[in-house]
This record gives sequence, C-alpha cells and structure tokens, in this order.
Amino acid sequence: MRDILNELEKIREKDAKYKQILGSMCTPPHKIAIEAYKMFIETNLGDYELFKGTKELEEKAIEWIANLLHAPPTYAGLLTSGGTESNIVAMWIFKLLSNKNEIVLPKQAHFSFLKASSILNLKLKVIDCKYYMKANEVKKKISSKTACVVTIAGNTNFGYIDEIEEIADICYDENIFVHVDAAFGGFVIPFISNKVFDFRAKISSICVDGHKMGMACIPCGFLILREKEWLEEIKVRSKCTHTKFQASLLGTRPGASAASAYAVMHFLGYEGYKKIVEECMNKTAYLTKLLDEKKIEYVKPVLNIVAIKLKNVERVAEELKKKGWYVGIDEENEIIRVVLMPHVEKDMINKFVNDLEEVIK
Amino acid sequence: MRDILNELEKIREKDAKYKQILGSMCTPPHKIAIEAYKMFIETNLGDYELFKGTKELEEKAIEWIANLLHAPPTYAGLLTSGGTESNIVAMWIFKLLSNKNEIVLPKQAHFSFLKASSILNLKLKVIDCKYYMKANEVKKKISSKTACVVTIAGNTNFGYIDEIEEIADICYDENIFVHVDAAFGGFVIPFISNKVFDFRAKISSICVDGHKMGMACIPCGFLILREKEWLEEIKVRSKCTHTKFQASLLGTRPGASAASAYAVMHFLGYEGYKKIVEECMNKTAYLTKLLDEKKIEYVKPVLNIVAIKLKNVERVAEELKKKGWYVGIDEENEIIRVVLMPHVEKDMINKFVNDLEEVIK
Repeated sequence: MRDILNELEKIREKDAKYKQILGSMCTPPHKIAIEAYKMFIETNLGDYELFKGTKELEEKAIEWIANLLHAPPTYAGLLTSGGTESNIVAMWIFKLLSNKNEIVLPKQAHFSFLKASSILNLKLKVIDCKYYMKANEVKKKISSKTACVVTIAGNTNFGYIDEIEEIADICYDENIFVHVDAAFGGFVIPFISNKVFDFRAKISSICVDGHKMGMACIPCGFLILREKEWLEEIKVRSKCTHTKFQASLLGTRPGASAASAYAVMHFLGYEGYKKIVEECMNKTAYLTKLLDEKKIEYVKPVLNIVAIKLKNVERVAEELKKKGWYVGIDEENEIIRVVLMPHVEKDMINKFVNDLEEVIK
Repeated sequence: MRDILNELEKIREKDAKYKQILGSMCTPPHKIAIEAYKMFIETNLGDYELFKGTKELEEKAIEWIANLLHAPPTYAGLLTSGGTESNIVAMWIFKLLSNKNEIVLPKQAHFSFLKASSILNLKLKVIDCKYYMKANEVKKKISSKTACVVTIAGNTNFGYIDEIEEIADICYDENIFVHVDAAFGGFVIPFISNKVFDFRAKISSICVDGHKMGMACIPCGFLILREKEWLEEIKVRSKCTHTKFQASLLGTRPGASAASAYAVMHFLGYEGYKKIVEECMNKTAYLTKLLDEKKIEYVKPVLNIVAIKLKNVERVAEELKKKGWYVGIDEENEIIRVVLMPHVEKDMINKFVNDLEEVIK
C-alpha cells in the first residue's frame, strides 16, 4: 500500500500548487471541512433513508444558505455537485414549469448554460453587455416565449453583478422565472454589502457554491428554489434504494459534502466568513494599488476579481506560466483574470505584479 | 473546532451502520481508496490544466477500466459522479448523434433513465420482461425512430444480465446505439465469468461505477464510449478556467475521485478484485443455502444479489428494520433484495436469515 501512496505523492507533485494559482475560483478547503469530509466519507445521500444523520446535516447546511440568502419559508434546497449541476437543474425545472424553452442571459453567463442548452434543447438569447446585464436590455429581449432570465451575481470575467432586483421586478410582472447564478458571489456579496441579489428580490432561484468561497470540499453546490412544490417537476420513483423518491439530477451523492459544508459554515459563522471575505477584498485593493503604481490598466473590481486589461493575453499568460503563474484568460475582452481567493497571499501578489510588469514590457 | 467535530460524530451515530445494510450497492471504500482521496482533496478536474498529475491518474484509472472491458483503441472515457450521470451523458450523446429521441429499455432499467427522459425529452419504450431482456423482444420493439437500446449487466432487482451480445448484433445491423448499464455488474462479471457484456460485443458505450463493487470513494463512475469523436457532440468552450474545453455534464469535479479509483485498482489489481468478488459469491451461495434450509423461496442468483420472494414485502421490510436490518424492497415483483457486498459478513447472514424466518412466520 505504501508503494502506491508514494507513487501518488510523486504524481501529485505534477499538479500546480495553490501558491501559483491566481485564476481559479477554487481554494484549498478549510481544515474543518476536510476533517468533516473524512468522517463521512462512507455515506451516500442518494439513499438518505440509510443516512438520517447525514441527511440532517444536509438540511442544516441548506438552511444556513437559505437564511443567508433571505429565502422565504416556502423554499426548497438541493445540495449539488456545484454550479453546473445547479444551473442545469434550475433550467430543467423552469422549462417544465413554463413549457417554454427560451432563456435570456448575459454574454458573461457561465458555460454550463451551453451544456443546459444542448441537453435541454433550450434556445439561448444572449444579451451582449459589456460588464453586466442591465434591466432595460432584458426588457427589450424577453418575450412570451421566455421561460427564464438568467442573471449573475459575480460574473467570472469581472466579478460584476447584473441589475438583479430590477430584472426580477420586470420578470415577475411578465410571469418569467429568474435564476441567479451566484456560484461565486453568493459567498462574497452578503459579507461586504447590502446589495440585493437574493430572495429579497423577486427571483425564483439562486445557486451558490460551497466549494468556491464557501471553503467546503469539492463537490459542493447549493440550489435554492423559491417554492418547494417546484421540485415535484423532477421527482422520480426510485425503486432500488431504501429511499422512495429522488428529486435531483444525480443519484448516489457523497454525504461527506454535506458534513463538510455544515462544519465550515458552523465553525466560521457569518462573522468568520466576513473576516475572510474582507481579507480577500483587502488583497484586491492591494493588487489594484500595485497595478496603479505600475500604470497597468484594469477593470475597477466590485468583488475579489481583478480583470487586467492587456494586449496579447495568450502570449502574456504563456510567459506568466513560465514564471510559475496560472492566471485566467479572456481573449475576447483582452483581459487576464486574477481571483483573490483566500489562498492568495500578499507576497504572491508582489511577485506576480513584478513578473507581469516584466512580461508586458 | 473540536466541539463541532464532536457534534458531527454524534449526528453520524444516527446513520445506519454498514453491518445493518443488506440492500445497498455501496460499501465502505477500500482503505487505500480513502487514503488516496484525502491526499487529493484539494484538486479539481474541472480545470485539469492546473492539475496535470491528477489528470494523469484520471486517465490511468479510465484506461484500467477500458482494458477490463476490452475497449477498442478508439475509445474515450469519462470519470463521472456515478451511474446516473454516466447514463444521462450516454443518452445525451446518442440523441445528438442519431437525431432521434426514442430509447428502448427493459423494465428493470435504473430510474436514472426516467431522469434522462425528462431532461432530454426522450420517449421511453419499455420492454416488460420478467428477469432480463431478451434479443427477440428487442427486435420487435426497435424501429427507425430508435436512437439507442439500453441494456443492463446486473440489474438492480435480480442481478440478471440482458442478452447483450445478441442485442448488440441486432442493433449494429440497424444502426442503433447500444448502451450497457453495468454500474453494478461491471466490477463483478469480469471476475467470475467469461460472459460477453462489454466491448467484445458490438455495443456503443458502457458505464461502470467505481463506488459500488469497485470499492472507490463516492463519487466515482466511469462512462466508456466506443469512439472518441462522439465526445465532440457535447464539447463546450470553457471561458473561465485554465482549461479550454469541457466535454462532460458537470464542471468542477473532485480529482480525489480519480486518485481514489486509481489507488484501489492498482492496489487490488485484477486478482485482488477477483478474490473479493469470489468471496461475495461464496456469501451469496451461503445465503441461498440457508434460505433453502428454511424453505424460503428466492430467484436463483447470477451475481451477488439475492431476490427473496415474499408476500407483504412492505410489512416484512418494516419488521426487519425494527430488528436492525435494511433490505431493498421491490413491491412490484414481491421481493426483498439482499446485495452481498464486501461488508456483508457470514454472521450477519446467519442472524438475518433467523430474523427473516421469525418475521414471515
């Protein structure tokens, strides 16, 4: 056994280290998240009649998120494998509920909506917005064929937030569902602002990832729906498990994800997350200060994501990689993206900005 | 931190213990699978450009399975979250490739095909077979509208295997895709027989779960496709990661699953699995011997699943639960199911059969 574990250790060395990773929305999980994961590694939430304790943790973790997002008492929550599953499930439900197949969404929407479009045969009507989606643009694009408008709270490119409250008002009047993709922003925005992106607006659903800024272990996402009864649309009879019905995309699911999420949420609490997010925002300010000093342009950040405006982003990213840095690339917008995750330290930022200056000179 | 972990331990106590679980296709993962999982818990295969070592393990694990199943050199493999995802992805690909939406499948097919039907808008043509699906029944049911025939290698109710080789021959001539759901049987059949259920038959794809008889950690499934180019159908451009394309249903995925599967496969090897499966088959024979002695009827097992024929299965299962046993229930066929997983020991079987006798008297 030792031989194989030694071999694995060597292979693990080929992975990038988090101290090199500046473009990912993932980060090493919190210590307590890992401990909890290990304790529950044998559990299966696909058959939760067997795992009543684990199921309880899943419900408590969902409740924590639902409260954070001001969900009404009628809500239903799903623990998912992450934003992609959450987004697909939301589109699935709204397609069935509306009996329509047109989705309006901003250009910055995550590529999981391309998957949703293919698998659900949805027509995507993309709004070509620069940084975020505005309500008046949505107003022009929706029609009687629109099943759902997808909005983003913290888009991947810039970390910007669509005009969710206004969009939700418009859609509410038109009987159109509104889904919020807050996979990243859901664990950031509530801790630094009073911005209404959640159920205080007339939205239908929202997804948030535990395994991004939530610091839980992969796989961990949440989908919260305004109405519990909507889940009925996707419920199937499960003949082979001890549990009679399933209303989820996946079958067998790690109970360890629930334990991991519960543990870190209850260990950190609102104040603990606030502290972590504030530190990330401080590091964001630190990065932009250095960029200002070097006269390197960027898009003014609203969350802990900095989009640095450059020419030849592919080449720059390649050169940076040679120096040991992994940044996000967005060729279309000519930016490289730095996500100031909890693992990004000031000395990394110092060294990165020096290396960047050298590369673009 | 200790407080919360203590609380979790107490909550974990509410879960059923594996020594009570007789009806699940999951089992505690192998020790080395857990060790490997822990080592790779920070890795994300949704962005595998960052995790080249982990990606290597994923490829090696897939290769191991592909070899076990006699895949041709043109194959492509996906590491998935389990059978449900694998089945949905296979149906997704075959729908797009064939431009048809009718699926022929046996009554025993897993409920993931109900999900696939709903999400992909597939018409399910169900063959009402008693224990397994026969080729002549398939021949009568297929038409020019059929995209794919789903077959099962080790169905949930009985552990029976459809006439896969013959069905694949028929479908090959008719240009119809054949998917094999070997989520359970894929890690059993190759170790106890020469039965052709894999790529030696003219099948198109097959799914096998690492987290069932493969003894890897949840979530771990595999989907193997005959032709690599078929993956192009579901490929999407991934703008936000360091990796440019994704051809999978999910986005962020635990690299730990790959490490866990690789570790246990390479630790046990073919011979190691053979030994475990043979022990499970011995315990299956032991259970049926006891049932014979007690004159309790059952369906002659072919794999390590015993379907016990009873009246009032709901009541029996309820009484058994009071005695601490969790068995599978199939009301339609009036059976309770015992799956002789590696965690099921002889003393459990002894005690269970005595309790069962008492309950049905």
